[in-house]
Amino acid sequence: MQLVLLSGGSGKRLWPLSNDSRSKQFLKVLKHGDKYESMVQRVSRQIAESKISKHIYIATSKEQVEVLQNQIENPNLIIEPQRRDTFPAIALAGVYLFSKRYVSPDEVVCVLPVDSYVEDEFFKKLGDMERHLKNSDADIALMGVKPTQPSEKFGYIVPQSSNESAAPDQKPVKVGSFVEKPDHDLAQKLIDNGALWNCGVFAFKLEYLINSLIERGISVSHDDLFQNYQNLRKISFDYEILEKTNNIIAVPYDGAWKDLGTWNSLTEEIDDPVIGKAIVGPECSNVHLINELDIPVAVLGIHDAVVVASSDGILVSDKNSSQNIKEISNHFDARPMYEERRWGWHRILDYSSYDDGRNVLTKRVRINSNKNISYHYHELRTEVWTILSGSGHVLMDGEIKSVKAGDVLSIPPRTKHSIKANDYLEFIEVQSGYGILYDDIIRLCLHWEEVVAHT
Amino acid sequence: MQLVLLSGGSGKRLWPLSNDSRSKQFLKVLKHGDKYESMVQRVSRQIAESKISKHIYIATSKEQVEVLQNQIENPNLIIEPQRRDTFPAIALAGVYLFSKRYVSPDEVVCVLPVDSYVEDEFFKKLGDMERHLKNSDADIALMGVKPTQPSEKFGYIVPQSSNESAAPDQKPVKVGSFVEKPDHDLAQKLIDNGALWNCGVFAFKLEYLINSLIERGISVSHDDLFQNYQNLRKISFDYEILEKTNNIIAVPYDGAWKDLGTWNSLTEEIDDPVIGKAIVGPECSNVHLINELDIPVAVLGIHDAVVVASSDGILVSDKNSSQNIKEISNHFDARPMYEERRWGWHRILDYSSYDDGRNVLTKRVRINSNKNISYHYHELRTEVWTILSGSGHVLMDGEIKSVKAGDVLSIPPRTKHSIKANDYLEFIEVQSGYGILYDDIIRLCLHWEEVVAHT
Repeated sequence: MQLVLLSGGSGKRLWPLSNDSRSKQFLKVLKHGDKYESMVQRVSRQIAESKISKHIYIATSKEQVEVLQNQIENPNLIIEPQRRDTFPAIALAGVYLFSKRYVSPDEVVCVLPVDSYVEDEFFKKLGDMERHLKNSDADIALMGVKPTQPSEKFGYIVPQSSNESAAPDQKPVKVGSFVEKPDHDLAQKLIDNGALWNCGVFAFKLEYLINSLIERGISVSHDDLFQNYQNLRKISFDYEILEKTNNIIAVPYDGAWKDLGTWNSLTEEIDDPVIGKAIVGPECSNVHLINELDIPVAVLGIHDAVVVASSDGILVSDKNSSQNIKEISNHFDARPMYEERRWGWHRILDYSSYDDGRNVLTKRVRINSNKNISYHYHELRTEVWTILSGSGHVLMDGEIKSVKAGDVLSIPPRTKHSIKANDYLEFIEVQSGYGILYDDIIRLCLHWEEVVAHT
Repeated sequence: MQLVLLSGGSGKRLWPLSNDSRSKQFLKVLKHGDKYESMVQRVSRQIAESKISKHIYIATSKEQVEVLQNQIENPNLIIEPQRRDTFPAIALAGVYLFSKRYVSPDEVVCVLPVDSYVEDEFFKKLGDMERHLKNSDADIALMGVKPTQPSEKFGYIVPQSSNESAAPDQKPVKVGSFVEKPDHDLAQKLIDNGALWNCGVFAFKLEYLINSLIERGISVSHDDLFQNYQNLRKISFDYEILEKTNNIIAVPYDGAWKDLGTWNSLTEEIDDPVIGKAIVGPECSNVHLINELDIPVAVLGIHDAVVVASSDGILVSDKNSSQNIKEISNHFDARPMYEERRWGWHRILDYSSYDDGRNVLTKRVRINSNKNISYHYHELRTEVWTILSGSGHVLMDGEIKSVKAGDVLSIPPRTKHSIKANDYLEFIEVQSGYGILYDDIIRLCLHWEEVVAHT
């Protein structure tokens, strides 16, 4: 079986921890043993432990490439040129497997969201889905979560026969129809008739997807589709494929399944009510606090609230109001202060702009073991690097030399430069000039072998 | 009349805005016209506008000297060598006026707390106190605030005759006794009998204080007293002098008088509910937010709370719980992140410590027009300065040169250095070394004329 994890979303609802480069699935807030892992790390670990498949791909956009490389060891990435909803994403992934990886049309592909917060049992069910697809004439198999309450937030999978899913052996049921976000009474009626929640997990034989694309006149060559990706309609897989497919089965899953997309739901799964440097007064109740800053946070006499502090901002919200964050965070169009990158991370410490038009941006930068930043130059800004700790090599205008803690490097505009860590390397970067533009960077090459070729 | 403002306190109750170097009286949160002023600036302005005296002194400790010089133009400072309560502070101030300024023993000295939040009328009353002292045989005149409720928090001045202070012409009353923090019922009874709140404003002829000191065997030479200051008892002026003086009058003041010593009381006087980069959701009520950071703060669904963010920390408190901050902030023994200094200010941007024992502290430093930092050196640390904006002169190991935006200076351990601004100067300072100690600084001289003498 081929597994495709869909890693989407900008995750503004978890501001200020999530931002354009750090979606909710990358936040390391879920405890596992002594350590914290992100949703994408948790799902990857659960899949590995379940041993259901060795063929795991992550379908994502280019903005997430570096953070995925940072959080997952050697991920197989299928990169969308732009965001266009789940049908285009799944189409591109299927075509990639078909035309680039030569996966047999007969093989089962299972697609699941990377931010599914589920129990290990869930992943065993993926094996059941594959088995049932192979042993039946069904075109698509879905995972159907047994509802725990008549929620108005979810889509419901309605079985053809109302008795089917009540069976104790949890056999798959034939799907009759779908109902999106019913009101409370209808939801209760659907549940009474054996309906299941649609959790966005789809399995199908690769040929079923490929044939569906051919029928729609969509190219099944990856290079073609990648080139013309912007022409695909922005539509969900549910609307474009599921609702037009007659022969669908659903495999019931009777365990926990959660959408950790709001602070209210996420904090329910965070064991430690307080993460980071903080004091929560004993008179507080039901307060969750996550502090990623170096300065302390004190919370006194507050109830039913979430307090989150990061380099991007500070949130103080009643738990029930936390779903309003998405709108609020749109007001703050600041660039992310903290970013994970392919080679490590950087954090903005200070930004100043002066009356004479001069701008200065100060960053702390970490480069991980044996990693390097690209060989590049800037048109406008000067950079000054003060090496804090670690050692490595720097290449400036074709000349390579070793650097260590205490060294200071001045890099004027148009000077080509790159730096590579031995074990690790940390430095303070002061960018200054008349205009510091985010895209004032001309990258010459990425890999150190190519960088060294410039000496 | 000689006015002595007492500037005391470490102001931990207004954490995270106040810290050891920035007490509550220095916080610029009170609106005046378009600008914000601190309590000390407000009181100084009110005194100047009232024209009651040109002889204004501020009694303070050496920790506050630089911030006072920064906030008040050319303050006359009487500096305690250490903190020892109000009796020693007033004794030192009186002796300073007597032995250093040759103030006539016959002249009236009026002492008032620098953090009195009062109406302009209050300062006119100071003139009344002087007049009544001169026209009566009273030894001490107090300001007595007309109580607005039977508060249990204050000290009460009880008149000898219960009818006196009810007089509409607000004549001074003879003081019979003092009651500290009575319970509610006693407070009501005292108020019914004409008692007034003691707001810590004392006036006396200088000779009365000097004679009181001589009686106690305390030196009335300033240099002597300064040298032996640590031998003075830590006791308040109220206990040591007031309660032992028979002939005291109180001048009633019928206007606003507030103790802005907690977030709850301070925010009542802050016109703008939101100061700084922030969004407070429309569903919030009675929320005050002060954000001194560059990153935004969002508050959603919260009521009756104060949210304060500064370089030192973040506070989220129910307004009624805000008096508990003092204890809480004792847990955070971090050094202040933001400090106002004689020559400008500096703010810590980042602190890192590495496994090999290396420490790095990154600061943003501003030097104001024509100011300079001391000529000094460090034993252990290297400093790297990247000039952000402005221009000035730097002296390193006897050599002077001009500096401007874009320049980078490396200052190894034991290298003597100073820097002076022309209009202003801002730079990023990266301190690094094996051990960065706060007191690893050997100051050679303070004033630029002396600094230049080292070339």
